[in-house]
Amino acid sequence: MTVPAAATDVLSVGIDVGGTKTALVVTDAGDRLHASQVVATDGADIVGQLAGLVSRAAGVIRPATISAVGVAAPGHVDERAGTVRLAVNLHQVELDLRGAIEDALGIPCRVEHDARAAAIWLDAEARNEGRASRGLAYLSVGTGISAGVVLDGQPLRGADGLAGEIGHLVADPDGPRCGCGLRGCLEAVASGPAIARRAAELVAAAEQATSLPARPTAEQVFESAALGDAVARRVVDETAAHLARAVRGLALAFGVERVVIGGGVARAGTALSEPLLAAIARERDESPLVDDALARATVELVAADSFAGARGAALIARRALASTGPHAAGGKGVDREQ
Amino acid sequence: MTVPAAATDVLSVGIDVGGTKTALVVTDAGDRLHASQVVATDGADIVGQLAGLVSRAAGVIRPATISAVGVAAPGHVDERAGTVRLAVNLHQVELDLRGAIEDALGIPCRVEHDARAAAIWLDAEARNEGRASRGLAYLSVGTGISAGVVLDGQPLRGADGLAGEIGHLVADPDGPRCGCGLRGCLEAVASGPAIARRAAELVAAAEQATSLPARPTAEQVFESAALGDAVARRVVDETAAHLARAVRGLALAFGVERVVIGGGVARAGTALSEPLLAAIARERDESPLVDDALARATVELVAADSFAGARGAALIARRALASTGPHAAGGKGVDREQ
Repeated sequence: MTVPAAATDVLSVGIDVGGTKTALVVTDAGDRLHASQVVATDGADIVGQLAGLVSRAAGVIRPATISAVGVAAPGHVDERAGTVRLAVNLHQVELDLRGAIEDALGIPCRVEHDARAAAIWLDAEARNEGRASRGLAYLSVGTGISAGVVLDGQPLRGADGLAGEIGHLVADPDGPRCGCGLRGCLEAVASGPAIARRAAELVAAAEQATSLPARPTAEQVFESAALGDAVARRVVDETAAHLARAVRGLALAFGVERVVIGGGVARAGTALSEPLLAAIARERDESPLVDDALARATVELVAADSFAGARGAALIARRALASTGPHAAGGKGVDREQ
Repeated sequence: MTVPAAATDVLSVGIDVGGTKTALVVTDAGDRLHASQVVATDGADIVGQLAGLVSRAAGVIRPATISAVGVAAPGHVDERAGTVRLAVNLHQVELDLRGAIEDALGIPCRVEHDARAAAIWLDAEARNEGRASRGLAYLSVGTGISAGVVLDGQPLRGADGLAGEIGHLVADPDGPRCGCGLRGCLEAVASGPAIARRAAELVAAAEQATSLPARPTAEQVFESAALGDAVARRVVDETAAHLARAVRGLALAFGVERVVIGGGVARAGTALSEPLLAAIARERDESPLVDDALARATVELVAADSFAGARGAALIARRALASTGPHAAGGKGVDREQ
């Protein structure tokens, strides 16, 4: 997992704090991955957990210097203020994540919305490889749903850092109540918990024979669907139809050329991508307008273990350091060999 | 309607081509309105109609010079190429509007998406008056529905000029078939024709007494609703709920601080704005997340006779001229006093 780093390397740590898992990467100035780690998120003490992770990473990769930390987090992230607000699925109200990390570690820290961080990384990676697109959207489908959008290399933030929170756009006005309080949000019908809940509902209704347990996980639903279970297939097809509408929405609202789907639900792989691409193809058949909007667009699942959110966070932190210098945070440095 | 123009004025014509009406304005370098005109759209010969309108405007306001023409049009507008594609409600497939106007008149022409042109004007007007917002969305609700978004003074175009086409985002997956071919698009449930169709459906169902005719117009629906007609109120409340979700979507997806609603349906005035603001207030009550997103956002109807689309088109044309010079189109000029 760990690549030896030269003493002269300037390394950045990127951390992607998810509703259930937290991923950490260590990258160098050439965007190369030096180390990665995934742990269960400690929702009760996020700052303590992040500080511990960075300190231990600094210990493992010495004698290199960790110069900057980037944190990708869900919810309403104000990247200028460094705060995270209303991360419904993490049960936080408001957290000065940047200030807390800088105080704890003395290293400049930047925070970014998790889906936006992933979009920034995927866009930068494509540019590094000569595959730049004019617009990219990363659709994160996991415990929650949100999107990050990059247009011509620039992340779309909106007036208040909120741009991309499409998990709470309407998917079905008669749909189930969402965690946010509204009815029928995209997140209420197509997130991991929504898939599990819908499957449990159909299992309880007992209209069709099924191999699913009474309370299946979203992962079990995708596995059973791939094996031909009728109830599981119905749930997956409904989910795919909702996500196809979300992809259409991203293409039409933001005019992006590339949509990359990540998050826990995307780990289903072809069990998700096949019905999703079929649902998108049906929409294109039905509507010349959608066909036109998606004609030049690619839709793909993010590569497994791409650490897109964490790598985006590391990239943002490194770029911020390059533009402001290492003393911007007034930090004392962690594990510097001085 | 016509203000005398000084001979030294450099005037721009802006034209907003709608599904049913076409508006023209003549403005000067200080964004002042010199003349305005509204005619029925001639869908069979748009270029001929626009050329005639500009020539007659040039005749009326002589001896001033019309230096640039901007055209705001619905559909998929490629502002770089100057083309308009797939304007479903205007029954055009592809039109080189910029080339055709420049050929016909010898004046540099720019084309822009109609809702984006309106957003550009409203943003510029607010800046001129010291009321700049960090993000503004113009939601056009008429024969069709679309949005124009300006963030930090920059219009959001997307990779292919398509950004903002939110009329074809899903509003209700079980809703009526849309003109685009899909089911339950926002445009299929909340545009002028959708309001008229829904009212006709409820009148035909005859479950409630109503003063509405068998085939009411959207205008009649708003008028009857304001007078207390139960069927009309039901249609207006359903429309308001859909548009409240669209406003929520604009605030969440783009992070805008100001949403301005225009288009033919917005001419209903308080008969629309009161139920709409009530529906938005209900969403804010239900969801802390939506409350947070809309806390700093203003939602308003565009002022009647603001000619926002046409004025935006004129502004864009004038800005393009300022950056490229009058000879960019190789035009011979119209009505120049040389």
